[in-house]
Amino acid sequence: MNKHALFHKSDSLYSFALTPDTVELRLRTAMGDVRSVKLIYGKKHEFCMRQSVTDMQYAASDKLYDYFTIRIKLKDKRLAYIFLIEGNDGQKYYFSEDGATQSYDFSTAFYNFFQLAYVNENDVFPRVDWMSRAVVYQIFTDRFFRGKSDCGEGDNSYINLEWGQKPTPKSFAGGNLWGVTQKLDYLCDLGVNTLYFTPIFTSRSNHKYDISDYFNVDEHFGGNEAFKKLMTECKQKGVRVILDAVFNHCSEDLKEFRDVKKKGGQSPYRDWFIINGDKPTKRPLNYEVFAECEYMPKWNTANPEVQEYLCRVGEYWINEYGIDGWRLDVSDEVSHEFWRKFRRRVKALGKDIVLIGENWHDSRSYLRGDQFDSIMNYAFTKAMLDYFAYGTLDAQGLCDKLNELMMRNVTQVNFMMLNLIDCHDTHRFYTQCGCNAGKLLNALAIELFMPGASMIYYGTEVPTEGGYDPDNRRCFDWSNDGAFAQKVKQLVKYKKLRALTEGDVTFVCCDGLFIVERSSTGQKVTLAVNNTDKAIFARGITVAANDYKIIVE
Amino acid sequence: MNKHALFHKSDSLYSFALTPDTVELRLRTAMGDVRSVKLIYGKKHEFCMRQSVTDMQYAASDKLYDYFTIRIKLKDKRLAYIFLIEGNDGQKYYFSEDGATQSYDFSTAFYNFFQLAYVNENDVFPRVDWMSRAVVYQIFTDRFFRGKSDCGEGDNSYINLEWGQKPTPKSFAGGNLWGVTQKLDYLCDLGVNTLYFTPIFTSRSNHKYDISDYFNVDEHFGGNEAFKKLMTECKQKGVRVILDAVFNHCSEDLKEFRDVKKKGGQSPYRDWFIINGDKPTKRPLNYEVFAECEYMPKWNTANPEVQEYLCRVGEYWINEYGIDGWRLDVSDEVSHEFWRKFRRRVKALGKDIVLIGENWHDSRSYLRGDQFDSIMNYAFTKAMLDYFAYGTLDAQGLCDKLNELMMRNVTQVNFMMLNLIDCHDTHRFYTQCGCNAGKLLNALAIELFMPGASMIYYGTEVPTEGGYDPDNRRCFDWSNDGAFAQKVKQLVKYKKLRALTEGDVTFVCCDGLFIVERSSTGQKVTLAVNNTDKAIFARGITVAANDYKIIVE
Repeated sequence: MNKHALFHKSDSLYSFALTPDTVELRLRTAMGDVRSVKLIYGKKHEFCMRQSVTDMQYAASDKLYDYFTIRIKLKDKRLAYIFLIEGNDGQKYYFSEDGATQSYDFSTAFYNFFQLAYVNENDVFPRVDWMSRAVVYQIFTDRFFRGKSDCGEGDNSYINLEWGQKPTPKSFAGGNLWGVTQKLDYLCDLGVNTLYFTPIFTSRSNHKYDISDYFNVDEHFGGNEAFKKLMTECKQKGVRVILDAVFNHCSEDLKEFRDVKKKGGQSPYRDWFIINGDKPTKRPLNYEVFAECEYMPKWNTANPEVQEYLCRVGEYWINEYGIDGWRLDVSDEVSHEFWRKFRRRVKALGKDIVLIGENWHDSRSYLRGDQFDSIMNYAFTKAMLDYFAYGTLDAQGLCDKLNELMMRNVTQVNFMMLNLIDCHDTHRFYTQCGCNAGKLLNALAIELFMPGASMIYYGTEVPTEGGYDPDNRRCFDWSNDGAFAQKVKQLVKYKKLRALTEGDVTFVCCDGLFIVERSSTGQKVTLAVNNTDKAIFARGITVAANDYKIIVE
Repeated sequence: MNKHALFHKSDSLYSFALTPDTVELRLRTAMGDVRSVKLIYGKKHEFCMRQSVTDMQYAASDKLYDYFTIRIKLKDKRLAYIFLIEGNDGQKYYFSEDGATQSYDFSTAFYNFFQLAYVNENDVFPRVDWMSRAVVYQIFTDRFFRGKSDCGEGDNSYINLEWGQKPTPKSFAGGNLWGVTQKLDYLCDLGVNTLYFTPIFTSRSNHKYDISDYFNVDEHFGGNEAFKKLMTECKQKGVRVILDAVFNHCSEDLKEFRDVKKKGGQSPYRDWFIINGDKPTKRPLNYEVFAECEYMPKWNTANPEVQEYLCRVGEYWINEYGIDGWRLDVSDEVSHEFWRKFRRRVKALGKDIVLIGENWHDSRSYLRGDQFDSIMNYAFTKAMLDYFAYGTLDAQGLCDKLNELMMRNVTQVNFMMLNLIDCHDTHRFYTQCGCNAGKLLNALAIELFMPGASMIYYGTEVPTEGGYDPDNRRCFDWSNDGAFAQKVKQLVKYKKLRALTEGDVTFVCCDGLFIVERSSTGQKVTLAVNNTDKAIFARGITVAANDYKIIVE
């Protein structure tokens, strides 16, 4: 047995409460190495004397490891346990905090058993249930639709891009929130039930990630009136709205930053930013910024005044406009301490308000229940690219990868993940896979079958091409024939099935087909994807080349 | 190469900031499997284009794994990195979030590099520096010394144990805080600079873990006056004081619990406890308790009112009496959420106030910087028992085990660990190793050479025998000849050396000697322990059977 592969840790993503009285345990072994795993468990204070034994179930494999899991309904809130692992070589090992051993002394078990010491209800990571049903449409407002204002024609002189022309970094095409409201029926018809907007607050740029006023919607987008109207319509239609919280940095136009530029150390806002010197200067750059962007000064989220300011922003748009969640920009560069406070403040206004980090990497340190609910699942994006675009993963490789990703977080988080294949910060997936609509549809199908929310970047349903920023932010082509959108719409309908919103997931590779199975009580739904140029017959079904098939049982 | 053994994770105990501009990275490999490890790193936003390369250093091994580490002084607060691992088989692998691969595509590295996204100063886990210099003496007050009251003779009718007789669970020997003050010079002479008291607040028991009044010192111990006097003397002598925070449970005598017993659902304190029914009943037991102790109702630390009450207790003894820290009883059964709040409240009063959990197990989930600073190092206790008492570890096994423990937490935590070989909840170490004073002294020597604080359970310096509770709580034998205490005192003196308070640690096994090396700039101190019946000559020194030798260079 490869003892180096064995892994378990108490009170971790290998050992957590699903509900106040149900816990899930996971054990990792080397792939194909282990015949069976038994859980030896008991009440914490009795474990030295009395134990029960039950079988762990094989759950999944990735490239290197097998995972065994079990869910236990607790009678006592204190669980002590160790594992008994039988290898394919016939060897049996006890596995405790002291590692794999051939014998185990229960009389001193209190020193080295694994445990869930006590499941306190306020430590159970609660699910935001609607996320597992969410079909999220991401809107880059300037490029979606230029609608008519209810408040008379505003100043359109800022518009410098004819709709449909290729955008540059400084283009303004004139899309606005009036336009989104006017296209709500279109979006609902597509099956969308949630909108996520890149920033909409006052800013000089088209992307508005450099915010100069966090308490007002940009006039170019229609201002607060347009957003109020949009929210009213969304509430009526049952559409949820997620806004972009840009709390890593602001604009150099922000009133408080301008004050520091003017007064330096005399400004009360001096420590709202991270400046090495009295006043911020650009040559040399002496203050912290986002990336290399000197027009985007970084917030000092170690400063309690900044924390308070940003928490008030977070609360304001919930209290005043009723938004349903925040997507947190560059969230991994913002302090954990701030996010903990932000979560406390926001969740006090509603447990179902979702917090989604823009984290591109393994983000367990943000997803323990004290900070975010979810992240944008870029690791999924990468897996889709590897499979459909780069060809660096085959069907089995994709199974392995997705299983690995499911084991990166607790089950609750998996059901809140914001799955995406592209967004305003990546190339368009359609372009990445050589404008192959079959691949795009196959990728969307897999995305919709993942536990969690499914995100569609605006225009994907056209489909829309686009390379790197700003090319990935083209104007929506409203003259498209709607044929591909119909296919997307047919797919999205499956997202209503209980098996897809609540069911456990299994990834299987079978004769070259990539198969996702979702099953909930009394319902099983299977997606079979063929990412090859030839039809495949397997498991009693034929899937055409570059196509998919869905079976509902 | 055993790829299953490879481990690293961003923003974890394998990847953390030591200070706002120094980070420590760790990589785990199978033991003896790897020839070299290089770190390929760069600024996060440039990493796709530009990288630097440097060598990781081999740091330590445990039973299965080798650990490579590096400390990097940051120029930019955002670090992206991957590893290049050369196996002893000549194979080279890149190691990223996508695992070990033979090639690596830097152009898509933003999807799968490891990172410290941004080192925010409020996320850097600060050290409570004095803990690494602390010689902590644990006092079970009823059994240490019966001192004379400054406030006239109190009621001594509760005393039912003649000093020196064997205690029973209900014994009261009459030790008090006046007595501790009167023995302060004795303790200072021994080298003690910190006292940790098992609970001293009002309680009907001798151990006082069932507290009925958290705002007053028990009259048996001399009440608030005796404690005030003790604190004054301690401040004068530079002795720090840690009290026992029993926040998992209270006494059924607590006013609020009595109110619930009387009024049930009509009591405002009904939800301060966890009761399945209107009123708490013992037959059947319908409320949560500590272990099976129905006289110790569990606090409901999910209740904000309880959180507030216990936070006020925590603040009160700091504000009013100036204590230096809290040892947190049964801390792993209390909610994480409460501990986060408690830390915020207590640390606001003083960053150097230490929080030490009574956690017997791997406690990473409490030691991330948002909850405790430290725990009682029971895993060290177990290793000492395995080596000196049970014989289940040899010198090499002890090296492996202690290295494993050092890799369980970030470096800062290691320097705040409360190392112990026994306490009021274990058998006396002296008894465990067959009353062999040489073994006891050897174990104390190792404890003193561990990074972090060294705890001496009262009477260890006599030395004192004792089996399980209540036998491990015997009356201090003040008639002892002081010979062993002299040996302890000689040992404790080394704790003042900079190498022992600040230096990195290395554990080595050499020809049967167990060796601890501590080195800081310009100073190296070596402890060689011989836990055999024969003298050992190794490394140019001879260590007598069952003895130790210390070399200061």
